[in-house]
Amino acid sequence: MGKIVVIGATGTIGRAVVSSLSARHDVVEVGSTRGAYRVDATNIESVRKLFETIGKVDGVVTTTGRVHFGPLTETTPEQFDLGLRDKLMGQINVVLAAQPWLNDGGSFTLTSGISAHEPVREGSNASCVNLALQGFVMSAALELPRSIRINLVSPTILEESVPVFGDYFVGFEPVSSQRVGLAYLRCVEGPDTGRVFRVGY
Amino acid sequence: MGKIVVIGATGTIGRAVVSSLSARHDVVEVGSTRGAYRVDATNIESVRKLFETIGKVDGVVTTTGRVHFGPLTETTPEQFDLGLRDKLMGQINVVLAAQPWLNDGGSFTLTSGISAHEPVREGSNASCVNLALQGFVMSAALELPRSIRINLVSPTILEESVPVFGDYFVGFEPVSSQRVGLAYLRCVEGPDTGRVFRVGY
Repeated sequence: MGKIVVIGATGTIGRAVVSSLSARHDVVEVGSTRGAYRVDATNIESVRKLFETIGKVDGVVTTTGRVHFGPLTETTPEQFDLGLRDKLMGQINVVLAAQPWLNDGGSFTLTSGISAHEPVREGSNASCVNLALQGFVMSAALELPRSIRINLVSPTILEESVPVFGDYFVGFEPVSSQRVGLAYLRCVEGPDTGRVFRVGY
Repeated sequence: MGKIVVIGATGTIGRAVVSSLSARHDVVEVGSTRGAYRVDATNIESVRKLFETIGKVDGVVTTTGRVHFGPLTETTPEQFDLGLRDKLMGQINVVLAAQPWLNDGGSFTLTSGISAHEPVREGSNASCVNLALQGFVMSAALELPRSIRINLVSPTILEESVPVFGDYFVGFEPVSSQRVGLAYLRCVEGPDTGRVFRVGY
């Protein structure tokens, strides 16, 4: 039983994580626009203020982050920046700012996605950001102090997300939110660090 | 014999590329601060102006890009941004802006590095950016029109770079600039697309 912060708790994956962790942990749910605790993860000062309020924790899960979908040849640097600012730096900011607030042996669990390994049409920003997260996690695991662990969950499209993103992932087998939630529980309680846990692919 | 633009031609890898390509191609050397042609790849307008001057080409090679090296727990978002702006978006800007100037069947060849797959201490920005480039290249290959190809060369530390970066790569076997240059020649002339060519590891 630990105190686990879930940043992005109101999103599709976030709800799966909260559902999976709640039976065994004290879960602090953080949203960007909803809930008792809120944070703008793209702003590291906002993350710092969040943890000054919450205090010491045993784990931090991030399920936040938007990316740009659109034809490569029409993509502007500004559009490409969305994924870099939001999904990539949003989660990295949490690691940089929350690390002093993690108890010894605590864990970070970040979120990427299947396009890291299975690119799709109009998904260059997603593939870029999702593999960038893998590089960060793999490297950060070498340096985090006090036995703090860091892992990455990379799910395929969730069943709940098919109505929204299904057109980008035609023929991809969707995964249940329950299976996705299990991967986060394993990251929080298991011994692993620097690993990527693919779910459903 | 094609017209190949090398952006970053005055750098360590760039010189190896120019040396490798020159015997078989018309090489246009572009630097950031030196040479007849100059570009600031972090600014897409600068890249657009460069290609308005150069005109149609058969290949574009980018060997540009700085990243931040430093302890993870002391890294600021601003420091982390260096690699995202410079090595990552610098090369992506070139693809976005130069694509209309490539002849049918032409090629992009981008540059990452060994820390994409072999992380080193203080190298989280490098690992992140180098794997991000892999995600971009893998995905962009699905969408580039007119049989334009795109590949990524990922060298280990070059012999010439040991005096500069050797302390980050202790025990890594350095590679000759000749071997690195060969990989770029293969990307320019070969049939491949969406691939990562590791050199020396």
